Amino acid sequence: MPLPERKLIERIKRAARAPSPALTRGIGDDCAVLRPPRGQELLVTTDFSLEGVHFRRDWHPPESAGHRCLARGLSDIAAMGGEPLAAFLSLALPADMPQRWVDRFVRGLLKLARQFEVPLAGGDVAQSPTGVLADILLVGSVPQGKALLRSGAKLGEAIYVTGALGASAAAIQQMRAGKKLRPTQNRAHFFPEPRIAAGRLLRHRRLASAAIDLSDGLSTDLSHICEESGFGAIVDAESVPVAKGATLELALHGGEDYELLFTAPPRTRVPEAIAGVRVTRIGEIIRGDRVFLSDRQGRRRPMPPRGWEHFR
Amino acid sequence: MPLPERKLIERIKRAARAPSPALTRGIGDDCAVLRPPRGQELLVTTDFSLEGVHFRRDWHPPESAGHRCLARGLSDIAAMGGEPLAAFLSLALPADMPQRWVDRFVRGLLKLARQFEVPLAGGDVAQSPTGVLADILLVGSVPQGKALLRSGAKLGEAIYVTGALGASAAAIQQMRAGKKLRPTQNRAHFFPEPRIAAGRLLRHRRLASAAIDLSDGLSTDLSHICEESGFGAIVDAESVPVAKGATLELALHGGEDYELLFTAPPRTRVPEAIAGVRVTRIGEIIRGDRVFLSDRQGRRRPMPPRGWEHFR
Repeated sequence: MPLPERKLIERIKRAARAPSPALTRGIGDDCAVLRPPRGQELLVTTDFSLEGVHFRRDWHPPESAGHRCLARGLSDIAAMGGEPLAAFLSLALPADMPQRWVDRFVRGLLKLARQFEVPLAGGDVAQSPTGVLADILLVGSVPQGKALLRSGAKLGEAIYVTGALGASAAAIQQMRAGKKLRPTQNRAHFFPEPRIAAGRLLRHRRLASAAIDLSDGLSTDLSHICEESGFGAIVDAESVPVAKGATLELALHGGEDYELLFTAPPRTRVPEAIAGVRVTRIGEIIRGDRVFLSDRQGRRRPMPPRGWEHFR
Repeated sequence: MPLPERKLIERIKRAARAPSPALTRGIGDDCAVLRPPRGQELLVTTDFSLEGVHFRRDWHPPESAGHRCLARGLSDIAAMGGEPLAAFLSLALPADMPQRWVDRFVRGLLKLARQFEVPLAGGDVAQSPTGVLADILLVGSVPQGKALLRSGAKLGEAIYVTGALGASAAAIQQMRAGKKLRPTQNRAHFFPEPRIAAGRLLRHRRLASAAIDLSDGLSTDLSHICEESGFGAIVDAESVPVAKGATLELALHGGEDYELLFTAPPRTRVPEAIAGVRVTRIGEIIRGDRVFLSDRQGRRRPMPPRGWEHFR
């Protein structure tokens, strides 16, 4: 491998050096070696972060791009009620990439990794034909048979979300319109917080019957729960927690909120906040296979998935 | 996610449907859920396959690109003496990508996956700003503490390789010169065979003290063993098994052979063939931190790593 790539590996290796009970052998061999905790199942998820698709160098400071890259994977682990064990980063960079950008990207990623005590255990580096290409892989664990699945929703169950929705999509809308945003004042978009603690509690207290993270937007992600569970859903427009600066439209169809969407039996007492994050009841699982939005007057209209298309 | 991507997921999901004891939950949730075999450690490896870097659409039939993509990951598992448990494919495609190419890519990948009984358990899809971007992730297992590491080589040990070297690099050299090659007649390049069975036997019979797969070229990969083990090495030029149609130069510095390079104590009786693949003793671990090549007359010259730079 050419020298710049070896340098990058060495740099990440040094930066990532952190002890971890689950990691027997990290960067520096053909594979990383993990020792999974006893009685646990493993969770594996992988997510692209592609320049021009998931982030833009003129919009996102490198620390934000790195943070968001890891946050995508952590959020998937959160949605299963799991604990992150190790992260792996595949990173392809254009030949003329400034080293400073890469350093800051890795720093943003590792800062979030430290916050969740997840070691960066390996990955791959390559030269990219164009733009920054990152693929993040997360390995997590969950007690056997206890993972929160998309398929667990039952008829008549209530639908909940954590946090407020639409802030990330609102930020993109503003940047598209040419506005320069301050990352520190728009953390929901630039530095989203994966809901690991909330997912853990939902699983541990057996509150949720099904869960998914809101990465593609409420309308799309709820349709995944419905598909996998074999039901429909109705969402009460009035009760959707719209983030400050966002609209109902963005809260319903914008993506990258990285909040959790989950279902619970109607009589389950779901607290108003979980792990410090507000929880809001927004609807109900119904018969059929369609998702509806109901307005103040109780009128229903279909709400087909209008998936998040990133920056296209 | 846009419709073509959802279609791709559905297609892969259907194609990948194969029962597997280790896979509790595959494609269709936030994470895949794996049940690792008892008493085993987990191996994780991730490798890019980028169009223009690792394959070219005008050189490689899609089946070959898919096969080579998975082979890269399987070869890393082989080098640790492990068994593959599950594969994950992240695939980003240009908007104008012919569906037929994608189908054939996936077919080539899944054919190899079936051969090694490894389920395709998940991944990610995205739209690529340019070219096909694939990242393959392999999860494997190995009995606790038994993984073949790069760091296990000791002073005076013998160095071995499986198979013959340089055929893949020779094929690239010919294609660079404008020659059209028949994939079926150049399988070492287009359809390399990961040495899973050989790796398993090396570990099981405790033959190898250290191992690595030959992906970057002998000079580079041997330098990794030396670095991690804290020694130097000397390779006997005469004994290097040069593949038909290749040269010593290509055997030493060409890459993507996907054979295994390993070390063994001098008195270990290493068979002439392992799992049907020839094994050749090519050198010795020595003091220091440099790698040398010795000729027929016993003259040494330094052999610094001249890493594989793919198609650049």
